[in-house]
Amino acid sequence: MPRRVYVSLLPSLLDASRLAGSSAVVIDVLRASTTICAALKAGAARVVPFANVEDARRFADQLGQTGERPLLGGERGGVKIDGFDLGNSPLEYASEAVGGKTVLFTTTNGTRALLAAVGAERIYIGAFANLTAVAERLAADPGDVYLICAGTDGQITLEDAVCAGSIARAVRDRAPGFVFGNDEAGIAFALHEVWQGDRRIDALRSGLGGRNLVELGYDADIDFAARTDAAPVVPVFADGGLTLDRRPAETDAEWAI
Amino acid sequence: MPRRVYVSLLPSLLDASRLAGSSAVVIDVLRASTTICAALKAGAARVVPFANVEDARRFADQLGQTGERPLLGGERGGVKIDGFDLGNSPLEYASEAVGGKTVLFTTTNGTRALLAAVGAERIYIGAFANLTAVAERLAADPGDVYLICAGTDGQITLEDAVCAGSIARAVRDRAPGFVFGNDEAGIAFALHEVWQGDRRIDALRSGLGGRNLVELGYDADIDFAARTDAAPVVPVFADGGLTLDRRPAETDAEWAI
Repeated sequence: MPRRVYVSLLPSLLDASRLAGSSAVVIDVLRASTTICAALKAGAARVVPFANVEDARRFADQLGQTGERPLLGGERGGVKIDGFDLGNSPLEYASEAVGGKTVLFTTTNGTRALLAAVGAERIYIGAFANLTAVAERLAADPGDVYLICAGTDGQITLEDAVCAGSIARAVRDRAPGFVFGNDEAGIAFALHEVWQGDRRIDALRSGLGGRNLVELGYDADIDFAARTDAAPVVPVFADGGLTLDRRPAETDAEWAI
Repeated sequence: MPRRVYVSLLPSLLDASRLAGSSAVVIDVLRASTTICAALKAGAARVVPFANVEDARRFADQLGQTGERPLLGGERGGVKIDGFDLGNSPLEYASEAVGGKTVLFTTTNGTRALLAAVGAERIYIGAFANLTAVAERLAADPGDVYLICAGTDGQITLEDAVCAGSIARAVRDRAPGFVFGNDEAGIAFALHEVWQGDRRIDALRSGLGGRNLVELGYDADIDFAARTDAAPVVPVFADGGLTLDRRPAETDAEWAI
């Protein structure tokens, strides 16, 4: 059996019963996936995703009782949440701000997509910001690959679909035996072909989410999110949190980030 | 406000609360939409869609008691249903077979998509087979346009997505004021650009549904379904059935089919 790449243009389109033994990648380009990559690249110890603000605050209080002082990050309507330390701009997540810290991060669409992926053997975060790193990891993994687009509030987003296609292409370049498992993979691959290179930024700017960010003045975030390998790490989801997967010592050289 | 074209890559992705006053097109290229166009072009009086076989049989019995002898059409797994008059191949629906007849037609995915569209002011069937006719109708209608891809068993299909993009393109060519209402419209439009002209047939053959039809020996159906304006009629859904909408006398010349 050839290895297969499946794309889900929304979490709700994923047949979760098929995930066993596979690698899954959650893609929310604007901006959760990009920001999570930036945070871990900048040295955050862990990013813990929450679907809603209240749960993040409650967990912050619990950690506070143990002496740990986590950061609260995230946005609603594009704007930093009242009382939070950080918003959802990848540019805010610099070493000085997040180095060594746990970040409690609210992302409604991203959390929903992570929950949809829980049956997979390995769950990563994917974005243009870590395109090469995540593709190399997927090519080296055994089993099928599921690329899960987070979308926004149940709507398919152009930039996530293009990114899924770009990751599919990068995986096939590294492991040519892959075939498309569903029509959505073929669709995403074609979208990558249309919006690759200099045109990629148009996909990020022309979707509804991108246009909203431009209106809010977040042009620099879009530019960052469109850059290949701007934050070349592989966030791994396990035990409710995202950390950098450091491979065992014998393969460290190959997988060093 | 500019007029908007929305695409839903599946019926479940449609926000039905927004349909009031709009025109909706249900697209199931392989093969329900194409076959419905062929049947009405060949002179069928009416095509009545049913989600399941039992309902179609029951309605046939009811009509039988009134003296009307409807035809039963449709397939399961690509094969004609036991005891039915016709399968789901557009080539079967010739004038000799269906002229003047009511066809009770089972199409699971197409019926689901029609039900999703019921809030719209006008509901049509769309396919490559009636691309120009349906685009002209949409351009002449008032209000927004919703292009609803039927997909297959809850999965997005490549050929329906490409067809939605082709219809969107043809509408914009005729009524340039249209803008895309959602990212799915931009996605479908890009897919049309990739798979237009000689490449369209590849989209129909390479999707999971097309590959299944090729295996079953229905290559001629795929060729027919890929042909622009092979059955240039506009099926209109009203009162539970599909008929050819004949415009009022004063515009008959323009809309003659």
